[in-house]
Amino acid sequence: MHMPNKYTLAVHGGAGTILRSEMTTEKEEAHKRALRDALRAGEAVLRKGGPALDAVEAAVRSLEDCEYFNAGRGSVFTHEGHHEMDASIMCGKTLGAGAAAMVQGIRNPIALARRILEASDHVLLCGPGALAFARDQGLEEAPPEYFFSEFRYRQLEEARARGSAQLDHTQKYGTVGAVACDRQGHLAAATSTGGLTNKRYGRVGDSPIIGAGTYANDLTCAVSCTGYGEYFLRGVVAYDVSCLMEYRGMSLAEAARHAIHHRQLALGGDGGLIAVDARGNVALPFNSEGMYRAWVREGEEAGVAIYRE
Amino acid sequence: MHMPNKYTLAVHGGAGTILRSEMTTEKEEAHKRALRDALRAGEAVLRKGGPALDAVEAAVRSLEDCEYFNAGRGSVFTHEGHHEMDASIMCGKTLGAGAAAMVQGIRNPIALARRILEASDHVLLCGPGALAFARDQGLEEAPPEYFFSEFRYRQLEEARARGSAQLDHTQKYGTVGAVACDRQGHLAAATSTGGLTNKRYGRVGDSPIIGAGTYANDLTCAVSCTGYGEYFLRGVVAYDVSCLMEYRGMSLAEAARHAIHHRQLALGGDGGLIAVDARGNVALPFNSEGMYRAWVREGEEAGVAIYRE
Repeated sequence: MHMPNKYTLAVHGGAGTILRSEMTTEKEEAHKRALRDALRAGEAVLRKGGPALDAVEAAVRSLEDCEYFNAGRGSVFTHEGHHEMDASIMCGKTLGAGAAAMVQGIRNPIALARRILEASDHVLLCGPGALAFARDQGLEEAPPEYFFSEFRYRQLEEARARGSAQLDHTQKYGTVGAVACDRQGHLAAATSTGGLTNKRYGRVGDSPIIGAGTYANDLTCAVSCTGYGEYFLRGVVAYDVSCLMEYRGMSLAEAARHAIHHRQLALGGDGGLIAVDARGNVALPFNSEGMYRAWVREGEEAGVAIYRE
Repeated sequence: MHMPNKYTLAVHGGAGTILRSEMTTEKEEAHKRALRDALRAGEAVLRKGGPALDAVEAAVRSLEDCEYFNAGRGSVFTHEGHHEMDASIMCGKTLGAGAAAMVQGIRNPIALARRILEASDHVLLCGPGALAFARDQGLEEAPPEYFFSEFRYRQLEEARARGSAQLDHTQKYGTVGAVACDRQGHLAAATSTGGLTNKRYGRVGDSPIIGAGTYANDLTCAVSCTGYGEYFLRGVVAYDVSCLMEYRGMSLAEAARHAIHHRQLALGGDGGLIAVDARGNVALPFNSEGMYRAWVREGEEAGVAIYRE
């Protein structure tokens, strides 16, 4: 780890029941292109020797700016017809963390999480207070039109008609995330989400929760989760992967696999995660039908996939 | 664990720099009496063979109703002069959990957390949405006067003058919590807090976060934390104790001690925790000057303490 490392980067755009029957070739290609764009945004940082923390922020920003994923611009509608977004980021070198929950009108919630990490004494800010902090810090806002899409609004109307808060109508857990190891061997993780279509009561899932949706520690791994948030909260999944490595001596692949295929399945939760360690390993386990994902190791060709191999 | 167990119960009323010089005998006795009252409220459930989940809720309710502790009635003021409370509860048998953050006007936030566990599809509800859920469920509300105290208001004025969000003026991390093991060997944990005096920006600490402030699992332990919330969030402390037991094979005492005296100290965080396992063990480590605490094992005399032994 004292020698210049080769960098590693992985991103996800959500997991769940992604049916081939509902996928067109164009749609599939568009999603893959967006995942590659996010990889490129993160790689641009890592290739210059920049920190993992900057790389995961850049990759998640790119996914937040894309309308296909349920985060930032593409966020789903709440019951009241708003967008309430959650995001978190963690630095494996310092164990510093920043997170925002229930934020409205901020273009890039992950940039807010990063600013909380850098410029606040706190880890987690929620609701209008988080927005006030964002404004004090001069973060870019965006009007409701920016977040509007016909497709998402139809999802809300369908969900309202059905009368229950629900996931994306294809049962996709729409969350985005990135994990990276930089050339110095430092790790970072970031996650961002628009939550559940038609969500009520200020529901917050695992995405903004350090330990559940996001965790990074140079000694073990960086993890970003996507799945049924309530189960990931109860399973403290991201930190679980780290503990399985640190306390039980599992490899990254074993720990990530155990957390998703053993512990989350036993609890009843489905979804997946992306993880890297400081040795160039990448793990991308999911127990759902699919997970939008892409990954790259320095000097190797990038991989992009949606369904099971 | 299949045989009738002896029950165990522990409660805390916060940790931090509790200076003997600022303590009068009356004040000390009043705090101890309140801790004993909370123990009694929890024991009343356990003695009848009731579940640990009911016992920790009853004990925390008792502490929330007491004006001495920073939770429920005794909650500190936010920057805007309100009270924003956080609470969480977890059942070690089912790994079910409920939590509420930034809740105003609810008499017993721990009862709301319990209701979220029982009656909602979600784990964590925040802000006005959590209040709306509480109202739908008919939970008891209380007017601002109920939460008002001269002492707390003076703390707010002092903190405002100093211009920073801060802990209780004696640097006490005012949080309350309870952990229990019932006669069936099931565990539960609960935590409740009023947060930081003069807090802004919708700051939320570790208390409502499953894995950080609260965790329970019949296979390992039940834990409720109190301390510098941001460090407990980054350390995922409550779940860390459980992982040290499950993955590293430590005893409850070793795991609790390691989490507080080794890992939290290394991170820079101070505070403490209370924990029980299914074998009748109790651990009450803290790395601060003091921690308000009380504990009892069925058939034994209860202990109550504030300072280091």
